[in-house]
Amino acid sequence: MEDLQQKIRSFTTVSDADMEFALQFYKKESVPKGSFLLKPGQYIDSFYFMKEGCVSYYTVDDGISQVMELFTEGYFFTDLYAYIQEVPSLSYLEVMEDSTLYTVSKKDVEKIFDYSHQLERFGRLSMQKAFINNFQRIHQIKNVSNQERYLELLEKRPSLFQRVPQYLIASYLGLTPVGLSKIRKRLSKEEIKN
Amino acid sequence: MEDLQQKIRSFTTVSDADMEFALQFYKKESVPKGSFLLKPGQYIDSFYFMKEGCVSYYTVDDGISQVMELFTEGYFFTDLYAYIQEVPSLSYLEVMEDSTLYTVSKKDVEKIFDYSHQLERFGRLSMQKAFINNFQRIHQIKNVSNQERYLELLEKRPSLFQRVPQYLIASYLGLTPVGLSKIRKRLSKEEIKN
Repeated sequence: MEDLQQKIRSFTTVSDADMEFALQFYKKESVPKGSFLLKPGQYIDSFYFMKEGCVSYYTVDDGISQVMELFTEGYFFTDLYAYIQEVPSLSYLEVMEDSTLYTVSKKDVEKIFDYSHQLERFGRLSMQKAFINNFQRIHQIKNVSNQERYLELLEKRPSLFQRVPQYLIASYLGLTPVGLSKIRKRLSKEEIKN
Repeated sequence: MEDLQQKIRSFTTVSDADMEFALQFYKKESVPKGSFLLKPGQYIDSFYFMKEGCVSYYTVDDGISQVMELFTEGYFFTDLYAYIQEVPSLSYLEVMEDSTLYTVSKKDVEKIFDYSHQLERFGRLSMQKAFINNFQRIHQIKNVSNQERYLELLEKRPSLFQRVPQYLIASYLGLTPVGLSKIRKRLSKEEIKN
């Protein structure tokens, strides 16, 4: 669980003893492509760390799916609203590639935070990050042009474009598949010109 | 600072010693109606607790203001995105009534969290609450009818309607002033009928 340790330590300092305490509660789990960790109406009691693979987090409104995030290596994730509030989810967590996860239950997360001030801090900072990500996403879709959003994703997470179907990328960018395709064509024409 | 103590303890258990440590860093401040705690382009280094009064948190896009929150007694607030990221704000914090605040700097908040595991937990849980509030607000504006949003606000925060101008209430509900006025007229007609 070297990758998980590294990720936690990217937030804050954690002693070896506290880390060891935390890691005992994480369980390694393999989930096949096409399965669901969560569907609307279900409760979610787990927090996940993605060791390897890809999970799409989306809602479906009036038959149109809206991808909120694509979780790949190194992401912590859950349906945070349903997890915190302990209410039925409104979302899907669909496994897009055979994936390996480290899973921890809410009850065990509470034990970890009780045990260690450092890990409580990790909890605070990761919650802070969730708030920031959410804010940025909403701000981006409202204020940043489609082409800029596309280019930013291409720069930050180029491998997504190889491993995830285009319609999911489009939805994640708040575009239709046709809209995404137009942007790509326009950009490739510009490249040829230059 | 009894009200501040009570508010913090509504999140989690905090010993008297830890509470005393925290409270020394809060400064009482009076701000007059019409003044601004923050304008777009400015940095914000303070976290506030509203003892008495009202502050409107809004953005202005293309001349249209959009109220994100109306902070009244018992609210913790800041422009959380600008505060965390230490970037210039995109928002206004405008004082709508003569107000009394308890103010603490980011540097002192860090000292408080360093000193006490309990207060670090308070930090985690209040960040969690900020995430939930943000999620609910977005979900509500997307999925709940105008009339239902109006009725919910009326039930939860009836005093807002007495103390805040109608155009701010409208903006907070994601409505135009005309839209809000129509809803109120329709509801009062229904009342007369019943």
